[in-house]
Amino acid sequence: MLQRIAERVPSPPPGEIWAGDDAAVLDAPGRLVLTTDLLVEHVDFDLDYTPARSIGWKAVAANVSDVSAMGATPRHAVASVALPPETELDLFDGLLDGVLEAGAAFGVALVGGDLSRAGELSISIALTGELATAPVLRSGARPGELVCVTGSLGGSAGGLRALRERGDAPTAATRRLMDRHLFPRPPVEAGPVLAGLGVTAMMDVSDGLGIDLARLLRASAAGCDLDPGAVPVDPDAVSVYPDDAFALAMAGGEDLELLFTVPESRLEDVRGAVDVPVAAIGRITEGDAMIGGEPLSVWEERGWDHLLDR
Amino acid sequence: MLQRIAERVPSPPPGEIWAGDDAAVLDAPGRLVLTTDLLVEHVDFDLDYTPARSIGWKAVAANVSDVSAMGATPRHAVASVALPPETELDLFDGLLDGVLEAGAAFGVALVGGDLSRAGELSISIALTGELATAPVLRSGARPGELVCVTGSLGGSAGGLRALRERGDAPTAATRRLMDRHLFPRPPVEAGPVLAGLGVTAMMDVSDGLGIDLARLLRASAAGCDLDPGAVPVDPDAVSVYPDDAFALAMAGGEDLELLFTVPESRLEDVRGAVDVPVAAIGRITEGDAMIGGEPLSVWEERGWDHLLDR
Repeated sequence: MLQRIAERVPSPPPGEIWAGDDAAVLDAPGRLVLTTDLLVEHVDFDLDYTPARSIGWKAVAANVSDVSAMGATPRHAVASVALPPETELDLFDGLLDGVLEAGAAFGVALVGGDLSRAGELSISIALTGELATAPVLRSGARPGELVCVTGSLGGSAGGLRALRERGDAPTAATRRLMDRHLFPRPPVEAGPVLAGLGVTAMMDVSDGLGIDLARLLRASAAGCDLDPGAVPVDPDAVSVYPDDAFALAMAGGEDLELLFTVPESRLEDVRGAVDVPVAAIGRITEGDAMIGGEPLSVWEERGWDHLLDR
Repeated sequence: MLQRIAERVPSPPPGEIWAGDDAAVLDAPGRLVLTTDLLVEHVDFDLDYTPARSIGWKAVAANVSDVSAMGATPRHAVASVALPPETELDLFDGLLDGVLEAGAAFGVALVGGDLSRAGELSISIALTGELATAPVLRSGARPGELVCVTGSLGGSAGGLRALRERGDAPTAATRRLMDRHLFPRPPVEAGPVLAGLGVTAMMDVSDGLGIDLARLLRASAAGCDLDPGAVPVDPDAVSVYPDDAFALAMAGGEDLELLFTVPESRLEDVRGAVDVPVAAIGRITEGDAMIGGEPLSVWEERGWDHLLDR
């Protein structure tokens, strides 16, 4: 398997050394971000409805989303993969396909890794990123600023629900939801651009807007007043699950969009500079965290599994 | 559990951000090494004879050894930990103790991580290192140079054997072997010093001298002529397992010592500069890889499990 990887990983630029020695050697910027994300079979994915390519892709994408949410550009990844002894070579190749395709899509080089036997499949990726500006933390939101989110929300959770329901002959909208779940595309270029434009706080939406925004507010010691009608719910989620689409957006998770705060005076600059839609969904306040007159915390309590079972 | 980690991880230096945001922010040198190592329950350790502290310690030490073998100084780690839902908090605390104690011993800061449920315990650590010199690769060995190894070999495998045999009332020698297996101490300061002295090839001994030296020779397209009597076999392994100590040194693994090549004229400089014993065990040749007139490859075929079952 190591040979199969070696044959497929591109060559490093001059001065760098990737696989094949005790550790990779990399050119580093003056300031680095570093993160890691672990996906485990039966917990984070199920092989019944998740192609191996998706597992590799998502392991990279989840890390890319974290790096981008700091305002950094993803650079170099190492992967630890645990495989049951009976794993088919096709599955391993699919996993590697996913890692390398996501690497190509997001500008990430796989520079090393480790393989082990295990009782269940898991993949842990650690990813570095390069900062061209100061990092954007979760703690910088100030009262009066706008709360913004890129792209749309609820598509990934809608796709997972569709995959678990395994309906015959899925519609085009259902297929797009499944694709959004299996091959998420975090807005990798927007993170550093937003950092350069001076957004005040930023994080990625990985556990649902309700849970993630609550984290940002806690870190910033602030509240918010959100307009539920302004939340950019995935249009395919609305079409396939009209009754639950808003809940999927608030509590579904894995959308890998960027959630950030910015003074209102900068909103048009922001919208002109990034290549993804930006929705302004409310304001940071000095009070409690509210959405449409309801406490935001109701969405922290409505978990993923509850939603999927509706 | 995240809270338990947060309470125990030291504060970062000014300008750095460790846990608590999407990714850690780190000062980076001009050139970086990056590696990862995965330990899985039932494959790399067994909770029957491995305290949780040892698992955390070894996960850090294995990466430290790889970074040091490039000639780099270990800096920042992220950890992915997969835990069965029934894991006792004591076990988790022990694992964290081991990671943090090894971090303190080897100068490694734990700056982030991810936790997941899983069917079995595993820990994957990714570690960065800082290079003050050119990296030392496996491929630089040239005919005529000496083959050297730090410390002694076979102690870790001897300790594993003793742990598995679970004899009553272990002797002091047996206890030292067990400690060598459970809490290995790679010569973290020697790696960068050896790199600065111009050693020509270097790697760590993690799978046994026979297997690891064969890798170095393949990377360097060279052979060797080793003196079996010069191999620094762990004295406690000799005392506890007199018939097998040499085999444990050649094929046992996990010693985490440094294997390197150097022109003979530099040997005394090397010995004067590092704080660990350095044994010269033979020479690099243009011929085959030989030890005491026997092909070195016999030690590639004599695996770990075979040895442990003797």
